[in-house]
Amino acid sequence: MPASKPLRRSYHMWAGSQSLLSPKGRRSYSSVPGASPAHASKTALVISPEGLSSPVRELYDRLQRFMEQRVYPVEPELQRHQASADRWSPSPLIEDLKEKAKAEGLWNLFLPLETDPEKKYGAGLTNMEYAHLCEVMGTSLYAPEIFNCSAPDTGNMELLVRYGTEEQKAHWLIPLLEGKARSCFAMTEPQVPCWAIPTCWAPCGLCPQGMQAAGSSNQNVPTQVASSDATNIEASIREEDGFYVLNGHKWWISGILDPRCQLCVFMGKTDPQALSHRQHSVLLVPMDTPGIKVIRPLTVYGLEDAPGGHGEVRFEHVRVPRENIVLGPGRGFEIAQGRLGPGRIHHCMRLIGFSERALALMKARVKSRVAFGKPLVEQGTVLADIAQSRVEIEQARLLVLKAAHLMDVAGNKAAALDIAMIKMVAPSMAYRVIDRAIQAFGAAGLSNDYPLAQFFAWARALRLADGPDEVHRATVAKMELKQRP
Amino acid sequence: MPASKPLRRSYHMWAGSQSLLSPKGRRSYSSVPGASPAHASKTALVISPEGLSSPVRELYDRLQRFMEQRVYPVEPELQRHQASADRWSPSPLIEDLKEKAKAEGLWNLFLPLETDPEKKYGAGLTNMEYAHLCEVMGTSLYAPEIFNCSAPDTGNMELLVRYGTEEQKAHWLIPLLEGKARSCFAMTEPQVPCWAIPTCWAPCGLCPQGMQAAGSSNQNVPTQVASSDATNIEASIREEDGFYVLNGHKWWISGILDPRCQLCVFMGKTDPQALSHRQHSVLLVPMDTPGIKVIRPLTVYGLEDAPGGHGEVRFEHVRVPRENIVLGPGRGFEIAQGRLGPGRIHHCMRLIGFSERALALMKARVKSRVAFGKPLVEQGTVLADIAQSRVEIEQARLLVLKAAHLMDVAGNKAAALDIAMIKMVAPSMAYRVIDRAIQAFGAAGLSNDYPLAQFFAWARALRLADGPDEVHRATVAKMELKQRP
Amino acid sequence: MPASKPLRRSYHMWAGSQSLLSPKGRRSYSSVPGASPAHASKTALVISPEGLSSPVRELYDRLQRFMEQRVYPVEPELQRHQASADRWSPSPLIEDLKEKAKAEGLWNLFLPLETDPEKKYGAGLTNMEYAHLCEVMGTSLYAPEIFNCSAPDTGNMELLVRYGTEEQKAHWLIPLLEGKARSCFAMTEPQVPCWAIPTCWAPCGLCPQGMQAAGSSNQNVPTQVASSDATNIEASIREEDGFYVLNGHKWWISGILDPRCQLCVFMGKTDPQALSHRQHSVLLVPMDTPGIKVIRPLTVYGLEDAPGGHGEVRFEHVRVPRENIVLGPGRGFEIAQGRLGPGRIHHCMRLIGFSERALALMKARVKSRVAFGKPLVEQGTVLADIAQSRVEIEQARLLVLKAAHLMDVAGNKAAALDIAMIKMVAPSMAYRVIDRAIQAFGAAGLSNDYPLAQFFAWARALRLADGPDEVHRATVAKMELKQRP
Amino acid sequence: MPASKPLRRSYHMWAGSQSLLSPKGRRSYSSVPGASPAHASKTALVISPEGLSSPVRELYDRLQRFMEQRVYPVEPELQRHQASADRWSPSPLIEDLKEKAKAEGLWNLFLPLETDPEKKYGAGLTNMEYAHLCEVMGTSLYAPEIFNCSAPDTGNMELLVRYGTEEQKAHWLIPLLEGKARSCFAMTEPQVPCWAIPTCWAPCGLCPQGMQAAGSSNQNVPTQVASSDATNIEASIREEDGFYVLNGHKWWISGILDPRCQLCVFMGKTDPQALSHRQHSVLLVPMDTPGIKVIRPLTVYGLEDAPGGHGEVRFEHVRVPRENIVLGPGRGFEIAQGRLGPGRIHHCMRLIGFSERALALMKARVKSRVAFGKPLVEQGTVLADIAQSRVEIEQARLLVLKAAHLMDVAGNKAAALDIAMIKMVAPSMAYRVIDRAIQAFGAAGLSNDYPLAQFFAWARALRLADGPDEVHRATVAKMELKQRP
Repeated sequence: MPASKPLRRSYHMWAGSQSLLSPKGRRSYSSVPGASPAHASKTALVISPEGLSSPVRELYDRLQRFMEQRVYPVEPELQRHQASADRWSPSPLIEDLKEKAKAEGLWNLFLPLETDPEKKYGAGLTNMEYAHLCEVMGTSLYAPEIFNCSAPDTGNMELLVRYGTEEQKAHWLIPLLEGKARSCFAMTEPQVPCWAIPTCWAPCGLCPQGMQAAGSSNQNVPTQVASSDATNIEASIREEDGFYVLNGHKWWISGILDPRCQLCVFMGKTDPQALSHRQHSVLLVPMDTPGIKVIRPLTVYGLEDAPGGHGEVRFEHVRVPRENIVLGPGRGFEIAQGRLGPGRIHHCMRLIGFSERALALMKARVKSRVAFGKPLVEQGTVLADIAQSRVEIEQARLLVLKAAHLMDVAGNKAAALDIAMIKMVAPSMAYRVIDRAIQAFGAAGLSNDYPLAQFFAWARALRLADGPDEVHRATVAKMELKQRP
Repeated sequence: MPASKPLRRSYHMWAGSQSLLSPKGRRSYSSVPGASPAHASKTALVISPEGLSSPVRELYDRLQRFMEQRVYPVEPELQRHQASADRWSPSPLIEDLKEKAKAEGLWNLFLPLETDPEKKYGAGLTNMEYAHLCEVMGTSLYAPEIFNCSAPDTGNMELLVRYGTEEQKAHWLIPLLEGKARSCFAMTEPQVPCWAIPTCWAPCGLCPQGMQAAGSSNQNVPTQVASSDATNIEASIREEDGFYVLNGHKWWISGILDPRCQLCVFMGKTDPQALSHRQHSVLLVPMDTPGIKVIRPLTVYGLEDAPGGHGEVRFEHVRVPRENIVLGPGRGFEIAQGRLGPGRIHHCMRLIGFSERALALMKARVKSRVAFGKPLVEQGTVLADIAQSRVEIEQARLLVLKAAHLMDVAGNKAAALDIAMIKMVAPSMAYRVIDRAIQAFGAAGLSNDYPLAQFFAWARALRLADGPDEVHRATVAKMELKQRP
Repeated sequence: MPASKPLRRSYHMWAGSQSLLSPKGRRSYSSVPGASPAHASKTALVISPEGLSSPVRELYDRLQRFMEQRVYPVEPELQRHQASADRWSPSPLIEDLKEKAKAEGLWNLFLPLETDPEKKYGAGLTNMEYAHLCEVMGTSLYAPEIFNCSAPDTGNMELLVRYGTEEQKAHWLIPLLEGKARSCFAMTEPQVPCWAIPTCWAPCGLCPQGMQAAGSSNQNVPTQVASSDATNIEASIREEDGFYVLNGHKWWISGILDPRCQLCVFMGKTDPQALSHRQHSVLLVPMDTPGIKVIRPLTVYGLEDAPGGHGEVRFEHVRVPRENIVLGPGRGFEIAQGRLGPGRIHHCMRLIGFSERALALMKARVKSRVAFGKPLVEQGTVLADIAQSRVEIEQARLLVLKAAHLMDVAGNKAAALDIAMIKMVAPSMAYRVIDRAIQAFGAAGLSNDYPLAQFFAWARALRLADGPDEVHRATVAKMELKQRP
Repeated sequence: MPASKPLRRSYHMWAGSQSLLSPKGRRSYSSVPGASPAHASKTALVISPEGLSSPVRELYDRLQRFMEQRVYPVEPELQRHQASADRWSPSPLIEDLKEKAKAEGLWNLFLPLETDPEKKYGAGLTNMEYAHLCEVMGTSLYAPEIFNCSAPDTGNMELLVRYGTEEQKAHWLIPLLEGKARSCFAMTEPQVPCWAIPTCWAPCGLCPQGMQAAGSSNQNVPTQVASSDATNIEASIREEDGFYVLNGHKWWISGILDPRCQLCVFMGKTDPQALSHRQHSVLLVPMDTPGIKVIRPLTVYGLEDAPGGHGEVRFEHVRVPRENIVLGPGRGFEIAQGRLGPGRIHHCMRLIGFSERALALMKARVKSRVAFGKPLVEQGTVLADIAQSRVEIEQARLLVLKAAHLMDVAGNKAAALDIAMIKMVAPSMAYRVIDRAIQAFGAAGLSNDYPLAQFFAWARALRLADGPDEVHRATVAKMELKQRP
């Protein structure tokens, strides 16, 4: 396996991270020699791993082997850890697998060539190349972290690569790239009326008492803004004595409960008087700053996603040095848009992986079960479900690959319609495919004995998390009406 | 409120339960005077509470008031208990509400007139009358227990009323009717191959190691029976020294984790040589019998449904006296069929309630949120979702009422097609309606801040728990082809 | 069959229509003695023919027999006529069957008790009673006309009963009630730009030549009003010399091509300056008035629905006497609303009939076909389709019955939400059910060998004709948000 | 436009067809110089016309221009011809456009490089290249014939190229390639019981009279084979005096009513004793042979598809010379499989074109209509429909392209799963997309004023014609279960 040699070397560098910022080091961060030749066709889409250029193909095969030999076999153990009382501490097994993945050069594959053209920090894959690999990682709930390719770290690393000062990079980016620290992104806000959470559970007119108890009346409930509209962010950032002071209420902060989480990338409002897209700023907040109060972990259905979790958090007079601002005051939206660049389609790539795994589980299941004297696999509606899942996955995958490809060859802006299409398509496709698999498993499919329940919860959450279905649908329609007369 | 007087009295009797078996007591167990006159039309369907006979209508209104004044307002508190470390102990608030419900005669409403024609044990409502009330209870996750109308107790109480000896009734039925004990029903079995749970998490061909580790090979996996086919039950019941000795592996035993659970109704095989529907028997097993080992609580997605939970349980040499058998050896199927009589449509009634609540929450939500400068309530796709939910609920409700009505006027057998239809229709209808509400709530809808996530999990589970969708669909088709030439 | 005696007599009266306006005659127009007793429950829904009051039940049974003995057997012959060159002349067989139906009192069943409380003109059934009978008629494409219950005559007859002067009734209503004349209703207008039809077929930007040829440019196309919004009606009605002079362009005028059509009920604008709901008036226009120019028959897919057809018609200086106005100038909307009263749900009742027939055909088909060595009836997806159709029909029927019942007991206004619901639900339900049947028939299902293709076309058209799905959906949502807080 | 020069020349050769069989002529039949270089990547998919090799791209642009300048503008005229009394004679305009298309080298583009590697007969495009062009042709109902690329001629020409003797080619292939003759393919058989068509219209148990009249009873109806299973073909072919004598009953013979139809490719049974796949043979039958009796044109919904139509035909003692057999006796299935090779996905390519056109029409429509005071284009559900159509088209197109590509690089067998997938996906996708467009047009969408009704009818028919959805679904499931363990 000669091609992997330089990768092994880059691993050793990771192990001794002092050299990371040396010019030589920068060039070899897990980069794949020969990947993405400059003459890559502008129009041809590589639809299967067989078509990848040979170094990337080799990487793909290595990843596949790693999954088969090291990841799938330990999933039961990882799942048991996640169901145990220790679940809020990271599994030592994950840490071990991270070292092994690094050693095989399966590390930081996510960072796209466009963000990191000199391959200083990552493998330098194109989005389309990464799509093939990311799908494979998506087949296991535990895999993305093992390869240092999990959200929200990937988005934060990309943000730091793009917009960070050299000091910010040295301080925050390197530990993240090395997998020594984790991070979170604090943007979404509950923006609910005082009577809502947690005082009142049911703002539906059915519980007047609850309302009254909270000193509020149903008639005068102020209309609330939806957080899917990011201009609504209200958390405040004020300058004070050479510091920024943060106050706000955030939720769905994924990863914040992880004890390894050292960095919170925080978005808040620096200037309420500015033009609407110049009001917000981004700050790098060390997690040990006083005033960060995690109120509670939120659940998806009942799932906690330990150890990272999804926190509801109050920021109370949190003071950070002025140099922790990214790009400068009022640049928040610019950054948020950039952060969501390539990162915005990684979830879609993984959803293809979820779906493939769910279908594989379903096929194994129906082959091995008999009901009413006939193997499930011979029952017409089961076959119809399998066929439907296959065609839905296949079509969504091609669309994801096309969007990734367009980002590579024409840029994120030209790919905007295709990006909106996959965000509209992939989560609901996975939702249906996984649900069919659950149905084939019976109640077991809803339990923790299989990854299906967690896959489903993720797919469901992603119909909202990256912007609700409705928003993507509206975007597709509007671009369709404009772009194609 | 003169009509409630006798009910109040019956409450006092409950409070002092010694008199429960007196002839007089028997007659007045929460029965509703004047309910279900014998001249009830055989063909006219009462489609709204306004059409109920006046005593039942009064009961309905009282229930509605109880929900509004006592249940909805405390839902947040009940939810917090269920999310707390104390969740495996019953909430004292529930116990308090049970007493209040009893005091108002809102107690044991579930027991159908056909099972209890003399109204000795329950309110003596027809199935159709109960459908209207049960729907209201279904609007809150906590309500059914408060009115002593929750599964699996209702099914077990009905079983005891129908098939129990006087001794069995005195010992087991009375505490259940009084709400002093709870119970569970042990039927479903995992019947999975050795390599499956918990050794291997992924019997999908993706993890050969896992297979080998478990000493099993993918090629030779024995085909497994599906537990949706009840003739597959394998747990053994052997006679020994005047006792029955039980051995078996059961799962999805709802309620078994509740510390108040005193009775396990157990189904196992007494005679493997008998004709297939004469092999099984039902035993009443005290929960404190040695050998009942709860392996773990199972979750639905991640939800635990504490304090009752859903247990995976091993029965190891569990010895019960011979008089604990119900009806006698080989009568298991007869009993299982009977137990699933009226009880089989209660879930459907509650699913209408889930859906109504979800829609009410959704409407309140979209009235109070603005996104992209426009109230959600003015957005066309939101309106389309609301309309779709309304027509789906309305149609499913009418079908549930029709099935209940047919059971009343023509018997369970004549109602078989309609029962199969609502079991095919109601869970998936609720699944869609609740999911639309979740979408309108954004991520909050997936959290525990609203009952939507739990409603959804229940609706999803009920697409399997009472027999999977596929089984009901096949039943409907076969009856359709036979009954209507 | 003693109950039918008075009906027979009423038939003889029909045969000799001179006596129709005699007081005695009025009382007995096919009315069903004893139908709809005043003590009809306000809340109980009769969900099956078995529950109908005994005279109506007898009528139902007679109708069913007539269908089986006289209608279904001649459908092939009627279909062949409709496919022949003679198709624009009415089939003599239909005329013969109309006489037979009259003779059995199966005549003018549609006219609701509320419109005709003294049963002067019709059978005096409630809407709910008629729903059961109308469904049966809906099982054959040819049946409604045979019983003088077909659109648009029914709506026009109801209009005349409600709003006509005695002279208008004598002149127009009686021949319609006797089945001697037919009629049409001219409301919908194409309102398309000059370049559209027939000059240009493709106003989609794909055919610049077509546009230019028509002297129009894509950029300046005036936005067009949708005719689903009835305030847009533009046809003019001007007073001139004691006459009204009509000018306008109408289309989808069903029935206008029938040589028996003697009356066109015309809606146009009398006063463009009036308030928007006082601008329009309704006129009774004899079909032999000069200036009515049928441009062409329109088709649905390719179906012509001969002999009535659907005409595109120009009205050029059509002069009618002033006494032909209904109610008076500016009363058009009031009349249109009334005309759509009970009539508005007859289509839904028939759609249930279409669907039942389609399912019956499908079941017969799959029982008699083998594919790939297995009878279709044993194939899982075929069974699933049958089950799905059954539950969809059943639920829609209950909703139709409920809406009819609410109209009876609470009035059209109180039933508005339920009426909107069935108009939203029934056509698309039928569309799906019929399409499944077509799929089971293979290509034969698309041909004229079975009624399926025509049923489908009607169901499709009714997703638009009575107001598009979207309008009903919006209505349901808005009423839901308002009515149920 | 220098690249088109050789194509112009080849047109002249077409015009003078004597030289067609000359070696030189063979090489230049519309072939595109430089198309499909041998080094075409085995894995990269060309997803947009921009990516086509430059000669094919030039061809694509020329085709597009031809459509815009010559086809779309005359669609209204072609449609009027098809609605006129002359419709069973070919439109002279079509003949004129055929000459123009030939003159521009837009001729016989369909014949795949694999069937015609020396480009003797066609343009020598790969399947993937043709997919891009075929989609464009699919945007107009009239276009495929104009470019001599319409079914069933294309399949018959491919059959003759592959399996015909030189004499058969000279006699039958050349006139077809030149567009001077048309052809049909006689395979499907009604195989219905005697009582069914046309004697009885309703074999559903509802019409006992009809049954009895036809001397048949409902009880003893023999089960019938489905013609979707081709081994059921029963038409007989007997040798007699050096001739083959054909007898049989066929239907859905598309194109047989066209007066230009000179060839019927007939499949029948030569040896009922042989192994099931060696029983059938294919014969070339001149249309003027005595005994070919067209019973009637069949309709799809009511559409006749004149002038080709879809005939029901009786073959009565039709005698053809022995040399008219293709390949030899018992080779029928081999041929049928081959005929369905590339040809089998042309319908899918065209369905993408139908859908694109429908969406373009829909967008133009909603931009130019106002309902209830708001442009349709601003209504949320309309936007949602447009977005849904866009993502469905896009995904189906990618899958069609992938299947075409796999056929090119890996062969038809390796592409079998993907071919089954697009046949499962494309017709129902088009069915939905076109139906949404119809809904946006209101009743006009169902008429002949727009191509939507015909597009819809074709899409519906194709859910059956190329094998019903169910068959493709089963194929996908079985291959999925086998191919991907």
